[in-house]
Amino acid sequence: MMIIMKPNATPQQVDHVIEHIKAAGLAVHLSQGVEATIIGAIGETHNVPAELFETLDGVDEVQRITKPYKLASRQFHPENSVFPLDGFTVGGEEIAVIAGPCSVESRSQITETAHAVKEAGAAALRGGVFKPRTSPYAFQGLGEEGLEYLAEARAQTGLPIVVEIMSQVQLDLMVKYVDVLQVGARNMQNFNLLRAIGETRTSVLIKRGLSATIEELLMSAEYILSGGNKQVMLCERGIRTFETSTRNTTDINAIPVLKNLTHLPVILDPSHATGHSDFVAAIARAGIAAGADGLIVEVHPDPAHAASDGKQSLKPEAFAKMVKQVGQIAQIMDRRLASVRLPVKQ
Amino acid sequence: MMIIMKPNATPQQVDHVIEHIKAAGLAVHLSQGVEATIIGAIGETHNVPAELFETLDGVDEVQRITKPYKLASRQFHPENSVFPLDGFTVGGEEIAVIAGPCSVESRSQITETAHAVKEAGAAALRGGVFKPRTSPYAFQGLGEEGLEYLAEARAQTGLPIVVEIMSQVQLDLMVKYVDVLQVGARNMQNFNLLRAIGETRTSVLIKRGLSATIEELLMSAEYILSGGNKQVMLCERGIRTFETSTRNTTDINAIPVLKNLTHLPVILDPSHATGHSDFVAAIARAGIAAGADGLIVEVHPDPAHAASDGKQSLKPEAFAKMVKQVGQIAQIMDRRLASVRLPVKQ
Amino acid sequence: MMIIMKPNATPQQVDHVIEHIKAAGLAVHLSQGVEATIIGAIGETHNVPAELFETLDGVDEVQRITKPYKLASRQFHPENSVFPLDGFTVGGEEIAVIAGPCSVESRSQITETAHAVKEAGAAALRGGVFKPRTSPYAFQGLGEEGLEYLAEARAQTGLPIVVEIMSQVQLDLMVKYVDVLQVGARNMQNFNLLRAIGETRTSVLIKRGLSATIEELLMSAEYILSGGNKQVMLCERGIRTFETSTRNTTDINAIPVLKNLTHLPVILDPSHATGHSDFVAAIARAGIAAGADGLIVEVHPDPAHAASDGKQSLKPEAFAKMVKQVGQIAQIMDRRLASVRLPVKQ
Amino acid sequence: MMIIMKPNATPQQVDHVIEHIKAAGLAVHLSQGVEATIIGAIGETHNVPAELFETLDGVDEVQRITKPYKLASRQFHPENSVFPLDGFTVGGEEIAVIAGPCSVESRSQITETAHAVKEAGAAALRGGVFKPRTSPYAFQGLGEEGLEYLAEARAQTGLPIVVEIMSQVQLDLMVKYVDVLQVGARNMQNFNLLRAIGETRTSVLIKRGLSATIEELLMSAEYILSGGNKQVMLCERGIRTFETSTRNTTDINAIPVLKNLTHLPVILDPSHATGHSDFVAAIARAGIAAGADGLIVEVHPDPAHAASDGKQSLKPEAFAKMVKQVGQIAQIMDRRLASVRLPVKQ
Repeated sequence: MMIIMKPNATPQQVDHVIEHIKAAGLAVHLSQGVEATIIGAIGETHNVPAELFETLDGVDEVQRITKPYKLASRQFHPENSVFPLDGFTVGGEEIAVIAGPCSVESRSQITETAHAVKEAGAAALRGGVFKPRTSPYAFQGLGEEGLEYLAEARAQTGLPIVVEIMSQVQLDLMVKYVDVLQVGARNMQNFNLLRAIGETRTSVLIKRGLSATIEELLMSAEYILSGGNKQVMLCERGIRTFETSTRNTTDINAIPVLKNLTHLPVILDPSHATGHSDFVAAIARAGIAAGADGLIVEVHPDPAHAASDGKQSLKPEAFAKMVKQVGQIAQIMDRRLASVRLPVKQ
Repeated sequence: MMIIMKPNATPQQVDHVIEHIKAAGLAVHLSQGVEATIIGAIGETHNVPAELFETLDGVDEVQRITKPYKLASRQFHPENSVFPLDGFTVGGEEIAVIAGPCSVESRSQITETAHAVKEAGAAALRGGVFKPRTSPYAFQGLGEEGLEYLAEARAQTGLPIVVEIMSQVQLDLMVKYVDVLQVGARNMQNFNLLRAIGETRTSVLIKRGLSATIEELLMSAEYILSGGNKQVMLCERGIRTFETSTRNTTDINAIPVLKNLTHLPVILDPSHATGHSDFVAAIARAGIAAGADGLIVEVHPDPAHAASDGKQSLKPEAFAKMVKQVGQIAQIMDRRLASVRLPVKQ
Repeated sequence: MMIIMKPNATPQQVDHVIEHIKAAGLAVHLSQGVEATIIGAIGETHNVPAELFETLDGVDEVQRITKPYKLASRQFHPENSVFPLDGFTVGGEEIAVIAGPCSVESRSQITETAHAVKEAGAAALRGGVFKPRTSPYAFQGLGEEGLEYLAEARAQTGLPIVVEIMSQVQLDLMVKYVDVLQVGARNMQNFNLLRAIGETRTSVLIKRGLSATIEELLMSAEYILSGGNKQVMLCERGIRTFETSTRNTTDINAIPVLKNLTHLPVILDPSHATGHSDFVAAIARAGIAAGADGLIVEVHPDPAHAASDGKQSLKPEAFAKMVKQVGQIAQIMDRRLASVRLPVKQ
Repeated sequence: MMIIMKPNATPQQVDHVIEHIKAAGLAVHLSQGVEATIIGAIGETHNVPAELFETLDGVDEVQRITKPYKLASRQFHPENSVFPLDGFTVGGEEIAVIAGPCSVESRSQITETAHAVKEAGAAALRGGVFKPRTSPYAFQGLGEEGLEYLAEARAQTGLPIVVEIMSQVQLDLMVKYVDVLQVGARNMQNFNLLRAIGETRTSVLIKRGLSATIEELLMSAEYILSGGNKQVMLCERGIRTFETSTRNTTDINAIPVLKNLTHLPVILDPSHATGHSDFVAAIARAGIAAGADGLIVEVHPDPAHAASDGKQSLKPEAFAKMVKQVGQIAQIMDRRLASVRLPVKQ
């Protein structure tokens, strides 16, 4: 960390900053230039907040050199994290395609969809039972009933299930049923929830918030990792910008940037990232071409009657076509689509 | 709501949309133009999601005419909501200035600050005990101990207290202590929390999310209002934009826009909205000049040693100067600063 | 166009709007609902500004149904525009890879780069001679001298040249030398320049402004097209958002969205869209996978000593590797890389 | 400037950077820490681009300590720039209110408006004759005819005139007529235009681009200042964000930030910053309360029939009311409204 002093900072102020650095357990490296005095704070700085110094008298600015996260950083863990997910692995050679409806609506809807996406090449099933809806008047999900339907669909198809959790109150219930806990964009900085999930050993897929920076996404992963839960996948799902012709703006740059900064697997959600079924396949292809480790895609047998997100849901046929294209691109990237290889559970 | 059909929509598709409109309990008004066929869906549309129609075959676009919220809307409640807050009222003639540290750090810190802000003209005391921190390694707040210190400060000064709640798990504890539950920006769309707060009768101050639209803020208020809790204050605290010279961008436009759309009181947080103590007073003045009903300001007796947000905290003297200027502007706006008129609680 | 009246609009106000619609040469379709009165304005509306109606008394809002552009719209020109560019075509089956340095710095630099990018598979050469620099103290380009060097490079390699124009004052000079006039992001709404270019018959590559919407980009194309110049390529080069880990945010969604809205070719600039040479290849692959018709990439023989944009420039070897990967993805998309097939000019 | 080396940078790479720093005429200050080696480049760095170093091998990041502008900086010119504008001064105690229509439409329209705004308290008249319009089909302005009408209005009222220039081609014509050259948001980085204006001695009002940072605005001012033209006013007119309930988002923070960074006068345009006449007065008041040196406001005698921007134009009566409120706030800020004190020109 570098503490840049104001041009007119006094020697007393410099000394005062130095005391604070030492008190934080860091070493000091003083550099007195003509332009400015800069004080280096050296050591284990990832858990020292910059604000410790930036309000001291005479300080102009504090700049980090090392990242504020450590467990999520590729610097301290150069190899990709590869972890098993009921029949395949995530983060390695295999590309994980997760698919399913926005909401679980009925036993038949989720079962039908599970079979359809499996046939089309999906390796896992998604489906929401607690839905974060902007309007209090909108459909809020089936709750535990939905989890039971998902469990049946898993039993029939062997597909592991990915389900969004909205509150730590739901945690005990969720870990009984799900293979992957999904943390939604609106909860990316629900720190109570992150801490609680960190205590479990269930895999997590954490979505980037609508206006979260890449660094903030990694800090949220750090919350979970610091609790001891190592199986964290990151998900780019589009950010909010001034452009309104799509629901969100896919930050495709985030994929190579994240692969560079972290060892954790990176998944793309082309459904929320575009908001229009017409554009999902193009963005799914782009994501894999950019280096993503997987996709999470909304698929519904009858989008026109979906309880939520119908506009961005693919029909099973369109999804099958998309998976085929994605598989071809995976090959160019020296990767291959994951598929469920375990026997179906009884 | 208007459903705009694609240029090549068939009569069957039009009929199909009409059936859906009727099924939603709405009346139909058909307008067949040369350019496009437009189907009006008329009635109580605020709780009918647009997505019900936008995925039907032949539909190009669905546009709302009425707002998706009702309880929060000025259209259905033309008069300002004015509600009492332990000694003064919010939303009426009085301007509420809420002040205090980012975090409660110790008994002496919060007591000292409470007396200082009261003397400077504040009408309520803020202070965090559960802190949403980007880093898992940063100070996370004193918890219940902090609430006890706040209660003491209230007892000594008579200032009602405003405290952030981070999870519905904390609700029972919080309502025992606090006068106003603050919902932070990161929890603006924590819908479980909003529903739980809607069940209480404790006043709420809900902050706009970093990238939440004004409409989304009103929808979150609607969650609370629809539970029966009518004492909701809205808070603009800066949004995230491309500009990095300040921590956030104060959306000053949001103040007159909100006053136009809703009857709920609108509060400005110039501390988070700028992130620099140097700019807080200017933005506080601007907020009142733009029509805000109050301010929530970070004040710390020793910002250089604050556990959090020291950079944007005013010292008590600077705060006192700010309050004086704000009071002069309030007068021009035909308003006056609120002050605690009740006897100090024992 | 639909004019939505306020709930309390009077019959006189409705009549007044109707008169204005007729005066604009449009037909009227009146729809009086319970919720609101809506007046349709029907006919050739693309050149009727919405503001003509939105300030009339009693009007709440004006919403367009048809797009405000026509010549650029795929609706009126369903087939892709495919136009020849000295040896290959743009917008058809061929993928155009344009490459070269940010700035022309010397005869040897541009000649060396031209040979290197041609060998690596580029079909055209880029190089700036008038540079839009944020700082008045930065290198501003070689001017006409640079154009002469580019002409030599073209003569030696047969590669057509793409050069940025900054002002209509430069137009006569530029059209003598260049094959494609590039309009930079900062000039996307320099309407005098667009009109002047519309009068020429030189091909144009117009870059999207840093915060221009997709619709505004198409409106700028419409300026050029309406002057009679039909050879317009659109270029996505990243937009400005809150994310700072890359120079810009590649709006990859813009590629399928533009291909859907317009018949004009769409090119991606992965160099400006990321700002880091480490990420250029990933985004170039993503662009072609998303359906782009070409790429424009910064390549420099010695990025460390480039006069500008060295940070985002590829070395020729890295570029060659990128072209190979892009070629493989092109094949999956049923396309192929363009190459210069004409004999080298003498 | 600080050059931060990568953790694994070699001594040779460090030496290479040092050579480059010396070659740029700067002194070197080497700081070899455990965490990283940092090389300070000390001296006149405002005109040394960071890119000179950031592409050298072994360099991780380059960070500026001093600003990249000098002439615009308050550091080198601590006193406010106060300059005369035909009858009053800008940047000092007086608040300049500039008002008039978006476009000059006819002799009678501009004359009538000039008298009305003068009576209401304006100190200068605005009016566009070359209009930057998103659509090629929209009204583009009256050109020189409009300048003649403006000159007449000035002769009758004594109000100096502020007119937008769109291209350096118009410069000779414009300087003959206008008192203040306005550079519009879309031309903020039209560097050819800025250079040309820098050569004149006509006052300039430069508007911030839709997505320009505060630093970029100052760099554009630096272009003009470096040509020798010292009479530059900066104008905040709203930036583009995700929020769509207003046309732009007023960056009210920019006002105190600019007053802190620069000695140049800062003007607010509440008309473009909101886009709705209903919100103009609130934001005008906020701007003066935040410390702005003036306002530029769209006023039209008959907004419903304005050729452009009618939606955001005030009627003269509403403008008069706004000026009165603004005058009261100016008093609290220890300032007063400017008024034309010179005899009317013949």
